[in-house]
Amino acid sequence: MKDFFRVVDIGEVLALRPGFGRLGTETVALSGAFGRVLAKDAVSAGDVPPFSRTTVDGWAVAAASTFGAGETNPSLLKIAGEVGMAEIPAFALARGEAARIPTGGCLPKGADAAVMLEHAEAVDGDFIEVYRSVAPGTHVIMKGDDVAAGEAAVPAGTRLRPQELAVLAAVGAARVEVFRKPVAGIVSTGDEIVPADRTPGPGQIRDMNASALSGQVAAAGGLPRSFGIVPDDGDALHAVMRDALASCDTVLVSGGSSVGARDFTVETILRFPGAEILVHGVAISPGKPTILAKIDGKAVWGLPGHVVSAMVVFEVMVRPFIESLAGLSRPRPRPPVSARLAMNAPSVSGRTDFVRVRLAAGQGGGLDALPLFGKSGEIRTMTAADGLVRIERDDEGLAAGTLVDVFLME
Amino acid sequence: MKDFFRVVDIGEVLALRPGFGRLGTETVALSGAFGRVLAKDAVSAGDVPPFSRTTVDGWAVAAASTFGAGETNPSLLKIAGEVGMAEIPAFALARGEAARIPTGGCLPKGADAAVMLEHAEAVDGDFIEVYRSVAPGTHVIMKGDDVAAGEAAVPAGTRLRPQELAVLAAVGAARVEVFRKPVAGIVSTGDEIVPADRTPGPGQIRDMNASALSGQVAAAGGLPRSFGIVPDDGDALHAVMRDALASCDTVLVSGGSSVGARDFTVETILRFPGAEILVHGVAISPGKPTILAKIDGKAVWGLPGHVVSAMVVFEVMVRPFIESLAGLSRPRPRPPVSARLAMNAPSVSGRTDFVRVRLAAGQGGGLDALPLFGKSGEIRTMTAADGLVRIERDDEGLAAGTLVDVFLME
Repeated sequence: MKDFFRVVDIGEVLALRPGFGRLGTETVALSGAFGRVLAKDAVSAGDVPPFSRTTVDGWAVAAASTFGAGETNPSLLKIAGEVGMAEIPAFALARGEAARIPTGGCLPKGADAAVMLEHAEAVDGDFIEVYRSVAPGTHVIMKGDDVAAGEAAVPAGTRLRPQELAVLAAVGAARVEVFRKPVAGIVSTGDEIVPADRTPGPGQIRDMNASALSGQVAAAGGLPRSFGIVPDDGDALHAVMRDALASCDTVLVSGGSSVGARDFTVETILRFPGAEILVHGVAISPGKPTILAKIDGKAVWGLPGHVVSAMVVFEVMVRPFIESLAGLSRPRPRPPVSARLAMNAPSVSGRTDFVRVRLAAGQGGGLDALPLFGKSGEIRTMTAADGLVRIERDDEGLAAGTLVDVFLME
Repeated sequence: MKDFFRVVDIGEVLALRPGFGRLGTETVALSGAFGRVLAKDAVSAGDVPPFSRTTVDGWAVAAASTFGAGETNPSLLKIAGEVGMAEIPAFALARGEAARIPTGGCLPKGADAAVMLEHAEAVDGDFIEVYRSVAPGTHVIMKGDDVAAGEAAVPAGTRLRPQELAVLAAVGAARVEVFRKPVAGIVSTGDEIVPADRTPGPGQIRDMNASALSGQVAAAGGLPRSFGIVPDDGDALHAVMRDALASCDTVLVSGGSSVGARDFTVETILRFPGAEILVHGVAISPGKPTILAKIDGKAVWGLPGHVVSAMVVFEVMVRPFIESLAGLSRPRPRPPVSARLAMNAPSVSGRTDFVRVRLAAGQGGGLDALPLFGKSGEIRTMTAADGLVRIERDDEGLAAGTLVDVFLME
């Protein structure tokens, strides 16, 4: 097969995501749910908090009883009782009354605010003077303020951060249904490639791509599974891809930077019945020789052999596909960091360029982005980099001093 | 014990980190090292790459043989041989010669550049015409360009990102020595608190803090270990803290927002022989009633009971302590995101305020930061938030329209 690249834009590639669906679900304990994607709205059976409570030590009051109070003209309130911790007060407050209450205590009926201990003084065992007026709602959280009964406390498709775990605990979701983690099979190809634990022989080098891609899969919330190194042999690659497809949700084949090797990956993909090549060449740099195929409904990627190119393609295209598979429908913004380009970054019109940059404190107090030029086989430029700057396909480069968005590679 | 707060600044708290040392190390497989902190410089035994190699399919040349070549006056070069994949060429190139070479092939002696296949044409079996001149180094990576023999490929104290894993693979570090993950014991206190899997009785609420803090510990690279909920009872808290100290590297006790409960935490800490209270009150909001103690050389934190306060204190102070314990000495910048404040954010002079904000697309193309005001017991403000804006202690608030730094809570 010797077809020319039908080079497409990044946007066209990303638009193919829905064609791969999303994974099934599993139920996990809340304590192990950090970073997972919620599969069903977490609807609260009851109100959170389940009763109106104070947030300070002090006195429960009807706010109106304190209106106009100040240092020189305190309100005189009758002590109607005391609320203990973890108890529902049996009494109600009338206007002009107050009840001693601890932080987190349940407001008596009739109370809608609390006065801090230090803003009141006991006159005797029966009365207090309040030196500051409070508005309704001051120093209290009313029943249902956090989550109302029947409300979706956390919507499906949300990646669970610590605060979402807290809300799930509050609504009693001790076990939660989440999407399965996408399993990504990782295959390196090349006669000259040896694993990290082997000393390269003459003309051989160690495999960097499998390690880089495994880390990126993990960072994207997936589970990397290594299928080792396959020599440039169609039958061998076919056998490994068949294994990988049987046990993984998506497969990443890297290597084959030469035209021959690329053809070889495409030929091997097309040996699978029903396989479709959806993308063969993307208008980006680095990363042009990217392949996306569909086999048995699964995304199979042919990534460039140069490690920097493979990493950029992962970040820009593979990661969004993995997140889509993982059910992430409400991605939190990962907003870029703003920095000033420290030198000119040339680019070629007609493709989207991704320039590696290192961030440093700028002169004006902001950040400078220092472009790291280097070959796409050199991992050095990636370890020195903090992030990527995107140069759009119609731009012919960016001038020094331009304010750019830096997408962090963490 | 009824001492007044000796309120200190965040900076004074952070300066105490070195007093807690760093953890021991363990050796893990490279495939499981993502996100870990390297304990020893990874020094390369050999050069990476171990030989000079091409990055394109084409012709190995001495660059000087192509100087002056162009479409109209090609250089005529003699074919000296062909380099196979994964082999060291036995021949050398003289000036005026070229050798066919695949991507990743080993340069013959005498070659210092490569001409892409499409920029040359075979005249016959013995000669090619080269239509473009190349400079020394073009389309090749020279031996040791990525990492020179004896060089520290990744320095100790670095958190391993995908690209660092790639370099470690390249230098043959199939197993790496990393710092142990800090184990953080998490204890919730309060008579009114029940676990997430229980229906709260009258006046009771479910524990949110343990879930939030567990997620934050995991996000910081630590291992959370839950010690459940302890009632407001000195002996019970003492026993649980003793257990936690025996098996954890640091302990987080949350709850006890009332003055009485805080005293109670302090009293319990002081029952441990040699215990020191290092901090009792920090000039921040939310989070003022924070306690830091040292027991058996370990950091024991008393965090506010309100979940938002506990989370902010973790992010601002506990996390840096955990990272220090974890050996992180070269933190990558986690630069804030720049956004325009969408409304006034008032603040009180004399303390550092942390305002929760939600990010939204602004009118001018940038981001707007919308302050989320709410009580520190309301987790709702945290789930709606994308990050925190810090208002310095001498500021009395920030006006709408101010460009602010937003620290993401991911």
